Order: sequence, then structure tokens, then C-alpha cells
Amino acid sequence: MFKKIHNSTEILCIGEELLSGNTLNSNATWLAKEFSKIGLRHLRQTVIGDDSKNIQKFIKEASKRCNLIVTTGGLGPTPDDLTKESIAKAFCSPLIEFKAISLHIKNQFKSSNSNIPISNFKQAFFPKDSLIIPNPTGTAPGMIWTPITDFTIITLPGVPFEMKNMWNNTVIQWIKDNITVDEIVSTKTLSFTGISESLLADKIRDLLEIKNPIIAPYASLGEVKLRITAKGPDLESANNLIKPILSELIKRTGDKCFSKNEKTLAETIITLLEERKETLAVAESCTGGKLGDNLTSIPGVSNVFKGGIIAYSNFAKQEILGINKELINHHGAVSEEVAKAMAIATKEKLDADWAIAISGIAGPSGGTEQKPIGFVQFGIAGPNLLNSISVNFGSHRDRIEIQELSVMRALNELRLILLKKA
Amino acid sequence: MFKKIHNSTEILCIGEELLSGNTLNSNATWLAKEFSKIGLRHLRQTVIGDDSKNIQKFIKEASKRCNLIVTTGGLGPTPDDLTKESIAKAFCSPLIEFKAISLHIKNQFKSSNSNIPISNFKQAFFPKDSLIIPNPTGTAPGMIWTPITDFTIITLPGVPFEMKNMWNNTVIQWIKDNITVDEIVSTKTLSFTGISESLLADKIRDLLEIKNPIIAPYASLGEVKLRITAKGPDLESANNLIKPILSELIKRTGDKCFSKNEKTLAETIITLLEERKETLAVAESCTGGKLGDNLTSIPGVSNVFKGGIIAYSNFAKQEILGINKELINHHGAVSEEVAKAMAIATKEKLDADWAIAISGIAGPSGGTEQKPIGFVQFGIAGPNLLNSISVNFGSHRDRIEIQELSVMRALNELRLILLKKA
Repeated sequence: MFKKIHNSTEILCIGEELLSGNTLNSNATWLAKEFSKIGLRHLRQTVIGDDSKNIQKFIKEASKRCNLIVTTGGLGPTPDDLTKESIAKAFCSPLIEFKAISLHIKNQFKSSNSNIPISNFKQAFFPKDSLIIPNPTGTAPGMIWTPITDFTIITLPGVPFEMKNMWNNTVIQWIKDNITVDEIVSTKTLSFTGISESLLADKIRDLLEIKNPIIAPYASLGEVKLRITAKGPDLESANNLIKPILSELIKRTGDKCFSKNEKTLAETIITLLEERKETLAVAESCTGGKLGDNLTSIPGVSNVFKGGIIAYSNFAKQEILGINKELINHHGAVSEEVAKAMAIATKEKLDADWAIAISGIAGPSGGTEQKPIGFVQFGIAGPNLLNSISVNFGSHRDRIEIQELSVMRALNELRLILLKKA
Repeated sequence: MFKKIHNSTEILCIGEELLSGNTLNSNATWLAKEFSKIGLRHLRQTVIGDDSKNIQKFIKEASKRCNLIVTTGGLGPTPDDLTKESIAKAFCSPLIEFKAISLHIKNQFKSSNSNIPISNFKQAFFPKDSLIIPNPTGTAPGMIWTPITDFTIITLPGVPFEMKNMWNNTVIQWIKDNITVDEIVSTKTLSFTGISESLLADKIRDLLEIKNPIIAPYASLGEVKLRITAKGPDLESANNLIKPILSELIKRTGDKCFSKNEKTLAETIITLLEERKETLAVAESCTGGKLGDNLTSIPGVSNVFKGGIIAYSNFAKQEILGINKELINHHGAVSEEVAKAMAIATKEKLDADWAIAISGIAGPSGGTEQKPIGFVQFGIAGPNLLNSISVNFGSHRDRIEIQELSVMRALNELRLILLKKA
């Protein structure tokens, strides 16, 4: 085994679906983040199609430029899965059968009582001296192969959850054992909501000039992140550079910062409620289940989340929540009165400490002059508390944006209330 | 003006936020689709950071490989915007001021009554013989520049809506006028569920050998797609190559194919129900709102979707759906009996024609030997129909995978029932 000094890593994503623009390249994004966590210097990401000549050409080029390349895609059983074959060809190496893998594939199919498609056996062939990366959730294993001095290729499948599992279970440890990084990069991310990227940047303009750590703002829908990246000879010195900047950022931004450790807003709320031993229920009209889904995607949420009502139709609002028909007719389903009534009824019916109700116009139709597309009414009921706010997210937004912004806003309103009542 | 035969186009996206994985590269995806619409042969996409030396190195490499490169990013006013400067340097060309653009920038700021940041003037500098791509919605114009024979560079900004506007308003026409494409590409995608990628490939092995059109399978969680790509001198001849293959694929795969036009499973169900003028309601335990969210993300779903109950806790199952406490205690919340009772109650309470109920163990805790993590029970109630199935998605799956697979399976079960009752 060698322990080599690392110069740079590249990512190569292989697949016509990426090259043609039919699939967003989320694998490259995910891997790039992982690289920075373990200090790999990362200079280039490339996408090419399932074309053996192009793969060979690229790999030869890359072998002169970097000393580690991580590929995704092209490990499947079909004839257009060409990654291993092409990489081996680039270095004139044959593929040989790894018997243990053929056997494992046989067993996987045996346990599911289905016949083995003959094509799956191609997944058991690798260059002779490659290390196998087991794939616990699929049939395509990966490999770690060093065909020439100072150039290693790691192949991972294109299916994101298989790729991530294999990275986490095998690849990270191999990199730590075999690659020496010259500088450790430490990063910390603060998450903000309820403030725009430019307003946030104005508050911290002087800090954005600092060179180590670097502070970089990134905006996404309803959220801004500040990523603080420090470089040092070891993790401790990098972290020590981050600490004072972190305190200063939090001092200047107050309750706009909802997480210091990349928790989602839903995770933040669940933690806050868990600490208070309080429970939550939801009533969703225009968000149709998205708030509930955000909450229940978190493991262990059952201590806090009691459930909810997807009151998408007025019929559901009346029949399940018992909202008075006249109230809806008089004020409209998207009104302070109805949102409050939905929150109260949900809190009571589900015997929860807190309830959030959302009712709005998500579009693309249904807007009026008074209540345009993007207009959303929130109700929050809690112990001795009944709040209501209305927000206009703007008619230029599409349906899914309005739904996502509504969920974030609802969670943030509850967060701010909980912080005040702490 | 030259009218040249086109060999290949590449995309170069420049930006630390892409390289670091903080932003998904949606620009490359969008441009790649545009390329195939106008017949540009596209071989490679690359992401590099805001580093002048790397940009220069890359552009020199690319000039030997392709004859058109479209770049995004790095046209802004800040010091880390280096695209034009680096490209010009790669060909030892100076940048000169285009007076009309300086004037335009002045006018833009005058009309908004704000001072011009001095840095904005850098956006008026271009190589001498470049064509300017106006940017109607921002301050950064792009350029079309041919520094050497048979190699043209098109620079576009990184802000997606500016980039798209400039592509649509100026670039497409320039390409049509100046580049002769030898082939038009047409694609069609079939979507499948309830079949693995390798089983599907086995059914169509002979068709996968065909060279025009090419059939490429892509697997994602719970779904496989077959993308059929044909090349021809014009769109009609390309489409004519696709037609017989499409019929043959559908003939061999039967009801496993749920969409011929890239609809989601939820969209497919909504369309089926709309045609039948029938309505749907849901009861979700372990999926916590994800099924409702999938349905309500579709515009115009209100004709079909009546709402639902997020019966995440047993309390919610009893109090809102009226499920008998003894039934839950005796059979367990994840049982055929309870799933059926949930479906019946939901159908009745929401006065819907169809109701889907999902109850399962999404993990990471809560599994038993009989009902391990990944075990999910479905109930479907409809006109004179009450079905129940149980599925074990496997304990190796994570919570979100189990939730997503459950939603897909529930929708597909209903789809198969509706097809039989058609």
C-alpha cells in the first residue's frame, strides 16, 4: 500500500441521461461536498456519454492531470454500461471474473426467488489488481484501481443511494488510509431564513473580505447559507480560525440563523419541541401534505408529530375539521378566520400542544385581485396562543415554489414563537 | 461570415459554487436539452472554478477537441468573475472597451437612480472582433468570439434566467445562421415501474443492439426509464425511426410502462381519474403526507384530489379516522385489517370514489421479526372494491427511500386497478 501526497481529484460522471440534460447531475454536487469535508483538492467535474472511445480518451487525459478520479455511472448490467471496460482498455488491462462477486450476485437473486438475468454476471468482472467496493443495496460493485503510479480510479454506480452508501461505507476509509492531503479544509455552515442574500451580505460586508476563513453566501429558495471555510495544517487549527468568525456572524444576524449544523428547518423545529416535550399537528390546504412530509422524513419524529389533515378541498375542511361552512363562504377558504379555525380544530382533534394551518393560492389558476397567486394565510395555535399571518410570495412564483416557501415560512413562524416563549 | 460544418459542442460552467457542490448545475442540463433540439452534437460538459489559469488551460484543450464551446458564469462585476479575461488571455488577445456597452450600463443605472459601481464597467470590455450578446435583464452581456479557425466561444452569464433569455433571443439564431448541423436528434422516453432494470433489459435484449434508434435504460428509485434516441436528416425521419420501436417496446412490456411522455406516476393517476371523473383521498401513516404532496404538486389536481388524513399516530387513526382501538391493538397498526379500515374510513369521510391507505415501518427503529423495517401495508378502497397488499422493501433501505417507494407502489397499485376496470 502506498500513502501518496495528493495533488488533485476530478469527478467524471458517465451517462447519456446527464449529457443530454435529461437528469440533473446531483451526484457530482454530492461528491464535491464530500471531497471538501475530507480535504481533497478538487479541480474539475466532467460529464460524458456512454461512449467507450470518449471514456478511454478522457481517462488518459485525466491520468496526466490529476491523481485521483472518482467516476459515477455505467456499472449496470446493460450493454451501454461501459465504464469498467473502457477504463481497463485505456490501460490495456483485461477484465477478469471475481468469483466471490459472481457468487454474491447468485445469492442475491436466490434470496429474492427470481432468475438471474445473464447480463448481471458482467458486473463480476474487474481488472486483476483492483479492490472491490461492495454495493450492499444493489448488484453493481465498484472498484478502486491504480493502473499507473500516482493515478487511482474509483468507480461508483450512478444510482445516487447506492453511490452514497458505497462512498460512506468503503471509499472514505480507503482515502483516509491511502491519500495524504497537504491541507485540511474545515467548513461550517450557518443556515438563515427570513432574510435575503443581499441584506445578509450587507450586514457582514467587512467579514466577506477575510481570506482565511473565507465566508461564501449561497441562496436557495427561502433560505440563505453562509459557508465558512478555513484551511490549516490540521483540523484543530482550521477550526480555531472558524470559531471567532462564527460568533461574530451569529451576533450580527440574531434569530435569522436557524441552524449551525446544517439541520433543516423541520429538524430544528422537531428538536425544539422535543426539548420542550411538546407535540405538533398540521392542517394543510395548498401545501397538500408537504409540511407533514417534511416533518415525517425525520427519523424519530413520532415523539413530536401527531399527524394532520390534508384539508385540500372545502369539503375536507368542513367534514374532517368541522370548519363552519358559513365561515368559509363569508371570508373565503384563504382567510385569517379560516386559517385560525383550522389551527384550533387541528390542535384539539389531534390533542397536540401546537398546530400549524396553511391555506393559500398556489396557482397556476385561482388567483384574484385581493388574493393573488402566491397569497398564503397561516394560522398557528399553541398553549394560550393563536397567531395568524398572511404572506404574498408573488405571482411570478410557480406552484411548487409557493408550496415550498409556505412550508418554510410556517416552520419559521413556529420557530420564532418557540424562541420567544423559551 | 462562415457557415461551417459542425463537429461537436461542449459546455463549460465556471464557478466555485458549482465546483464545491453548493449549487446544482441546472444550466448545463438546460443547455444540453437545447443543443439536442437544434441538432448540435454534444460530447462533454465541464465544471471548473473561478481560476484564470485553469480556465485558460481548459479553453486551449477544448479548442483542439471541439468547434463550439458555450460557457456560463464569471461575467459579473466582481474580481472573481474572470471568464472573458481568461479566454482572451488563452489566445493572447487584449480586451477593448465597447463604448456602446459602457453607455448602456450608464443608462441602466441612471434609470434606476443608483450610482454605478466602478466595477460594472469591466463588463463593457471584450476581444476586438467579438459579437456582443445583449443581456436585456442584467448588466453582463455575453459574446460570440471565434479566436481561431473552426473554434467559436459563446459566453453566457451564470444567472439562469439571464442565460436563458440570451440563448433564446440571440444565440439560437446565430447558430442557425452560422453552423450547419449534419443530423437532427429526436428522443422519446418510456417510464416503467414494478420491474427491475435488468429484467426489463432481458425482455428487450435484441432491441438494445440496434444502433439507430439507440435505446438506453436508466434506473432510479422505484422506476426505470427507456430513452429512445434517433438521428436523421430532419425531425420527421428521426421520428419515423422511433415509431416502430416504441410500439414493439410497449407490446413487450405491457402494463409495466406507465408513461410515454415523461409524466410522473402521480400525474398519470390524476389523468386516469380525471378521464373517469372520479376522486381520490389518502390516509398516510409512515409516509406522513408524501403521497398527498406528490398529488398536490400537480396543477389543477383539485378536480380529483379531495384531501386526506396524516394518520401518523395511533391516536390520529382512532380519533380522526375512527379506527377501532381493539383492531389496532389486536392486529397492529401495520396490518391488512387496519390498512383496509383506514382506506374505507377515508373514502367515506372524504366522500371520494377511491382511497389509498399506507401504514408501514419506515425505520430506522420500530422493526420486529414479523414486521421488519421496510414492511409496508397498503389498503385501496374503491367502487365495490377493497384491496390490500403488503410489501417488504427491505431493511437495508433508509427511511426516505422506504417512504418514496411506498408512495410509488401505492400509486402504481391504483393505476393497475384502474387499467383493469377501464
